[in-house]
Amino acid sequence: MVNCRKEVESLRAYVPGKPIDDVKREFNLDHVIKIASNENPYGCSEKAKQTIIETLKTPSLYPDGNCTKLRNAIAKKMNIETNQLVFGAGSDELLSIIGRTFIGPSDEAITCTPSFAQYSASVNTMGGKIIQVPLINHTYDLNGIADQVTDRTKVIFISNPNNPTGTIITEKEQLEFIKKIPNDILIVLDEAYYEFVSDESYPESLPLLEEYDNLIILRTFSKMYGLASLRVGYGIAHPKIIDYINRVRGPFNVTTQAQEGAVAALSDQEFVKKVYAANNEVKKYTYEGLDRLGIEYIEGHGNFLMINFNKPSKELFVEFEKKGVILRPGYLFGMDTYQRVSLGTKEEMKVFLEACEQIIK
Amino acid sequence: MVNCRKEVESLRAYVPGKPIDDVKREFNLDHVIKIASNENPYGCSEKAKQTIIETLKTPSLYPDGNCTKLRNAIAKKMNIETNQLVFGAGSDELLSIIGRTFIGPSDEAITCTPSFAQYSASVNTMGGKIIQVPLINHTYDLNGIADQVTDRTKVIFISNPNNPTGTIITEKEQLEFIKKIPNDILIVLDEAYYEFVSDESYPESLPLLEEYDNLIILRTFSKMYGLASLRVGYGIAHPKIIDYINRVRGPFNVTTQAQEGAVAALSDQEFVKKVYAANNEVKKYTYEGLDRLGIEYIEGHGNFLMINFNKPSKELFVEFEKKGVILRPGYLFGMDTYQRVSLGTKEEMKVFLEACEQIIK
Repeated sequence: MVNCRKEVESLRAYVPGKPIDDVKREFNLDHVIKIASNENPYGCSEKAKQTIIETLKTPSLYPDGNCTKLRNAIAKKMNIETNQLVFGAGSDELLSIIGRTFIGPSDEAITCTPSFAQYSASVNTMGGKIIQVPLINHTYDLNGIADQVTDRTKVIFISNPNNPTGTIITEKEQLEFIKKIPNDILIVLDEAYYEFVSDESYPESLPLLEEYDNLIILRTFSKMYGLASLRVGYGIAHPKIIDYINRVRGPFNVTTQAQEGAVAALSDQEFVKKVYAANNEVKKYTYEGLDRLGIEYIEGHGNFLMINFNKPSKELFVEFEKKGVILRPGYLFGMDTYQRVSLGTKEEMKVFLEACEQIIK
Repeated sequence: MVNCRKEVESLRAYVPGKPIDDVKREFNLDHVIKIASNENPYGCSEKAKQTIIETLKTPSLYPDGNCTKLRNAIAKKMNIETNQLVFGAGSDELLSIIGRTFIGPSDEAITCTPSFAQYSASVNTMGGKIIQVPLINHTYDLNGIADQVTDRTKVIFISNPNNPTGTIITEKEQLEFIKKIPNDILIVLDEAYYEFVSDESYPESLPLLEEYDNLIILRTFSKMYGLASLRVGYGIAHPKIIDYINRVRGPFNVTTQAQEGAVAALSDQEFVKKVYAANNEVKKYTYEGLDRLGIEYIEGHGNFLMINFNKPSKELFVEFEKKGVILRPGYLFGMDTYQRVSLGTKEEMKVFLEACEQIIK
């Protein structure tokens, strides 16, 4: 029998959450809502859909490996050079490629915990060591990260807003941190929820690239743009960083549908405005509902909330399932009395709040 | 400035071929055909298109990370267990994941040359050593590969039919080879062009899995099924091999459109029969045309031919471009007097043969 690499021995395959249909069957329910994966409850731009349908005229042709059209569109929108961009099948894939590009055995990477699980996955697969500094007040502890830097540190991952807690670090905090970190360490600024943030202290990281060549900003079309099913995200960095990543990236890693859909989605900023406003309104409505029920929560800057039910999350998760509501239980993040709740539509949050009320009784 | 891993230093980013539009502009042409990437000239199943459009009802939901529907459909069609399957964004991605799962620094892998470039890419990225045994009579030299096996050998890659030469190894040759190879070496049977082969001596590899737990068969929806733009392929192996690969695979690596499209494509075997017949007819037509012109070629078992023009391929490639025909020049494969020519439609091959006639004059 074949053996895997020794680093792979200790890894575990990802176990996906239960689909809606399974929950319906298991608990004999007609209506089930899933507010577990921070998906956009408003779908995507209609323009994007039409453009994706257009691509089906030539389904058998390989995608453009260079993502030329999408590259040009984003470079123009952001006023950057086309060689500052790299594309992946979601930020997920870009994180994995970053691991493969920069992390080897005996190398170290630093992040906070709880944060996005793919940071450690990308490091562990390569045999590197991931150092996870606990959050302070549910927020990234940048000083704690800086204290862990050694000669072996290659990459620092920062989730801002942080998934799962929804907290942000400010522009000032981020800049002070970047100034402190040696220039040969790559700082990954994962801004998957960037487009949802309304807080004025939230960083605008793009101008930092002019001064710092050791940053990569990650954005995605999976959240605000509602294209999660198509898998497309991008990284913005110094051309040298982009070149390294491109050496490891697969030649056709982003589908034609994703590329064309993203170009159309980008051109439809009306959709973005609509989702932004709806998300804020639903957030306010959810806060009010939770306040009324006396349920504690962490204020969230993305499209999700960490809610503290003060009950073991695994059992409570099942209680919510029985009421037709699928959440993300906090034990997965080491926050055992919490549930991570995506902000769905107002109707979905009404169902959720009603379930809360019945359950806490 | 950040440094990449030392293994990445010597890698080069993939440079994609010129798109049709660029060639039109460059040579001021109205009509350009591209028969360079072994794409299906008949598109894909209409059923697949309709099913892909259906997925756009929920564009913002993440794909099923388990590919449940596609997994069940293939398991049923092939009469295998669902845990014998793994899915990737094309065979490309599966080859990369196989490298990450089984190859470390100081490990070795063996293949033939010229063959599919992603074999060495997947090994080099991981710091392993790829041993490339020359083809004999343009055909995989299995004895030559067996002679190179050492204690460090982890993976053997076999392209059958071989890309770019189109030759096959027979069922008997393959079985003798597998018997010889130590059981702790993974043998990758890359059968991307499986569905095109009509030769009766071509292996049916699936039953071998019952006896040998060190094989993985790779198939794709990019070629016969015409879904290259959507990126989906699969591997069939012992559940233990599949489990290892799943530990390294990204959780959402195949898009919803690809999964659903592949299920529908699989159910439309009429389309497959149509393409199979057309490919054979066009192959015969092309052979006759080349024979008439006295141009030498390697008989090909897939949907492409290696054609020997006895002229330096880089220059000849440009000559063909000027006539509105994009090919794959042989120097890329170390076969400098050849061009790799995909079998397009009969109309496209007529254009190609006319260009041949004008150029060899």
